[in-house]
Amino acid sequence: VILGLINDLHPADIAEIFDDLTIEEAKYIFLLLGDDLAADTLTEIEEDNLLRFIEVLPPKAIASKFIKRMDSDDAADVLGQMSNEQREAVLAQIDDRELLADIVDLLNYEEDTAGGLMAKEMVIVREDDTVIECLKELTRQAENIDEIYYIYVVNNFGMLKGVLTLKDLILNRTSKSVKDIYDPNVIYVNTSTHENDVASMMSKYDMVVLPVVDTLGRLVGRITVDDVIDIAREEADRDYQMMSGFAEDVEPSDKLGRQVRARLPWLVIGLIGGILSSVIISTYEGQLAIHPSMAFFLTLIAAMGGNVGVQSSAIIVQGLANNTLGVKSTFSRLFRELLSSLIMGAICALALFVFNYFFGSSQALTYAASVALLVVMVFASIFGTIVPLALNKVKIDPALATGPFITTINDIVGLFCYLSIGKFFFDYFAL
Amino acid sequence: VILGLINDLHPADIAEIFDDLTIEEAKYIFLLLGDDLAADTLTEIEEDNLLRFIEVLPPKAIASKFIKRMDSDDAADVLGQMSNEQREAVLAQIDDRELLADIVDLLNYEEDTAGGLMAKEMVIVREDDTVIECLKELTRQAENIDEIYYIYVVNNFGMLKGVLTLKDLILNRTSKSVKDIYDPNVIYVNTSTHENDVASMMSKYDMVVLPVVDTLGRLVGRITVDDVIDIAREEADRDYQMMSGFAEDVEPSDKLGRQVRARLPWLVIGLIGGILSSVIISTYEGQLAIHPSMAFFLTLIAAMGGNVGVQSSAIIVQGLANNTLGVKSTFSRLFRELLSSLIMGAICALALFVFNYFFGSSQALTYAASVALLVVMVFASIFGTIVPLALNKVKIDPALATGPFITTINDIVGLFCYLSIGKFFFDYFAL
Ligand SMILES: [Mg+2]
Ligand SMILES: [Mg+2]
Ligand SMILES: [Mg+2]
Ligand SMILES: [Mg+2]
Ligand SMILES: [Mg+2]
Ligand SMILES: [Mg+2]
Ligand SMILES: [Mg+2]
Ligand SMILES: [Mg+2]
Ligand SMILES: [Mg+2]
Ligand SMILES: [Mg+2]
Ligand SMILES: [Mg+2]
Ligand SMILES: [Mg+2]
Ligand SMILES: [Mg+2]
Repeated sequence: VILGLINDLHPADIAEIFDDLTIEEAKYIFLLLGDDLAADTLTEIEEDNLLRFIEVLPPKAIASKFIKRMDSDDAADVLGQMSNEQREAVLAQIDDRELLADIVDLLNYEEDTAGGLMAKEMVIVREDDTVIECLKELTRQAENIDEIYYIYVVNNFGMLKGVLTLKDLILNRTSKSVKDIYDPNVIYVNTSTHENDVASMMSKYDMVVLPVVDTLGRLVGRITVDDVIDIAREEADRDYQMMSGFAEDVEPSDKLGRQVRARLPWLVIGLIGGILSSVIISTYEGQLAIHPSMAFFLTLIAAMGGNVGVQSSAIIVQGLANNTLGVKSTFSRLFRELLSSLIMGAICALALFVFNYFFGSSQALTYAASVALLVVMVFASIFGTIVPLALNKVKIDPALATGPFITTINDIVGLFCYLSIGKFFFDYFAL
Repeated sequence: VILGLINDLHPADIAEIFDDLTIEEAKYIFLLLGDDLAADTLTEIEEDNLLRFIEVLPPKAIASKFIKRMDSDDAADVLGQMSNEQREAVLAQIDDRELLADIVDLLNYEEDTAGGLMAKEMVIVREDDTVIECLKELTRQAENIDEIYYIYVVNNFGMLKGVLTLKDLILNRTSKSVKDIYDPNVIYVNTSTHENDVASMMSKYDMVVLPVVDTLGRLVGRITVDDVIDIAREEADRDYQMMSGFAEDVEPSDKLGRQVRARLPWLVIGLIGGILSSVIISTYEGQLAIHPSMAFFLTLIAAMGGNVGVQSSAIIVQGLANNTLGVKSTFSRLFRELLSSLIMGAICALALFVFNYFFGSSQALTYAASVALLVVMVFASIFGTIVPLALNKVKIDPALATGPFITTINDIVGLFCYLSIGKFFFDYFAL
């Protein structure tokens, strides 16, 4: 009965159920699924679970039940996650030469490039075919390809020339030549194009399938939008988690231990930063004993520095992620940031000055707090802009700049500024 | 020459150029574009620019040059952004009754629902049509529809029964009845389904087009994946910007004034929070004069409370956004959060204790700092979990919890805990 129910579900739903089962339960149900359904489900299972799961299955079963029934991109992804020995063992079980060649080819590309995303299944016709030949070719290839949205046109060297829609085939007379009806304005990427660029191109140009060519312009694969939707989201999620202070991917359903493991690293960095702050403050203990009011604005200054810095970094991080940074030079970008932080800093410093003035703080504290606020905000802005740009240049994830490390540095520098400016004014007005 | 160049570009690229032009320049180039290209470009222009732009065009031109050539979803979006008077004026210029009815229908739906996303262009056939009739219907409807991926099958009442692919039409004999070849397992949504659910369904089930039905199950429209990709990204971007502390959408290319306007509100809230903190600290001025070392951990406590709170809120916010919260009750969620914050708090408090113990802080400070840290971390975790859940329940964007307001409250509560606990221990050890 349960089996009947499960066989009616969508593979994505079955995969969700699997995430909650023990490996034994999963294996049991899995072997009961229809073969195609089992293969589809496998591609939807979360990475961690997939690995645990595949370990317990024999290579022969993996090859015949799954790999052969999967799209080549998914097959390559699954194989790519296995150990070298297991991969060899599974590949040895695949007798279909063409499939084997496709998969081995796909395994060569970096995971985060167009080559790592593409699949080999596509309908290809020659420039000088006719519509009727296309239809025949389509019929021949169609059984291996679930969904056909476009037909790609290549020349005799296999170089991508253009694209045809099924609509074109249906609406044109069967004797017409492909040459006369295909659309040569085809947007494509290279195998080495980064997945983020693939995602933003497909989203910008509203594409459902994107052809991939090699360095010689030969059509070698195609990327479908369903595999790209997840990239945009995963990339955004990663940036979000970085800013929230998670060391690894966290989900509400994760086990307690995993959550703690993901959260603790930032907290520890924050703690170390806090301890450093306390050391800095402690060197001013004498000052604080004479002027305890200097302590009033310690948290305000630290918080404002952090806030401005995160804003500045976030603008850059999001600009890099969405490709909206534009062409401005780093210098003009910094100049702008200097200007806006001066404006914002001046407004905040003025407001703080007015507060202190009317609420009867000492003159020294009034000046110190406002001057320090302005300095800290400008510093944090510039620092917050430079760091992600620099990280990006040396190929480190710029989102790191919105995370624990940099914000902690910001805090410490801010405190140091405030305390030394405070000391200066208190000394000055004590004269 | 320029025109020739521009006419070769993709509408999305032209729209990008437009974003950088003055309204006069844009208008000039716009009127030179081919009509279809102009309409396509219009749908790609950013919202703010679009409004400025449309204001300067006469209703007749808008209707004939753009609205008539756009997909119905884009037409409704453009019209939905106009003032009431302008919209009436433009609608009055549309003579195609069917198109007018479609657009007016689409204008009724909330922007963030499936109804607000869907378009009317689709190929629909009846259950008891034959393949050849489908092909005729397709030919008839095809000129209005750019890309056809699926054909929907309805019964005599217009209720959605299933789906056909173009592949099905090509591969089956023309005398076959639709009844025998269509796939009845079609996934669909209701017009009132929220756009976030639409996005996660299309991503989960790898769909390119999603049919939309009304409350009676009648097929009323279809949503294409290109309009949904942007939702997932925009939603993630909004959450990201909320956490970074932007009051409105910010892009690196935005004008200085706009950037300041987006950034200043959080900074002002942070400033007010900081001033409140300073008031709280100032009530302990007497204590601080006697025990200036109490000031050492002010920033550490505030920062750690903020960090933990943002983590807790971010887990909930992302869980809500990605539909991964699962079915656990609020109570068990809070219990888990209590557990993990106790673990993390204990570890951090212990580490701080060790530091203080070996670096010769006073006994009172050593105890006060660690106890306060534990209390503040646990409080911030629970508070950070409750707030987004509560906001979500009352239909306010839960991402607000990761923004300025709540983190500021966290800071203040944290300081208050630390200072009162500090006072307690200093008094206790002074006995
Ligand atoms: Mg993949
Ligand atoms: Mg791959
Ligand atoms: Mg788009
Ligand atoms: Mg795929
Ligand atoms: Mg897939
Ligand atoms: Mg990133
Ligand atoms: Mg739309
Ligand atoms: Mg709409
Ligand atoms: Mg998917
Ligand atoms: Mg659309
Ligand atoms: Mg569109
Ligand atoms: Mg949100
Ligand atoms: Mg902070």
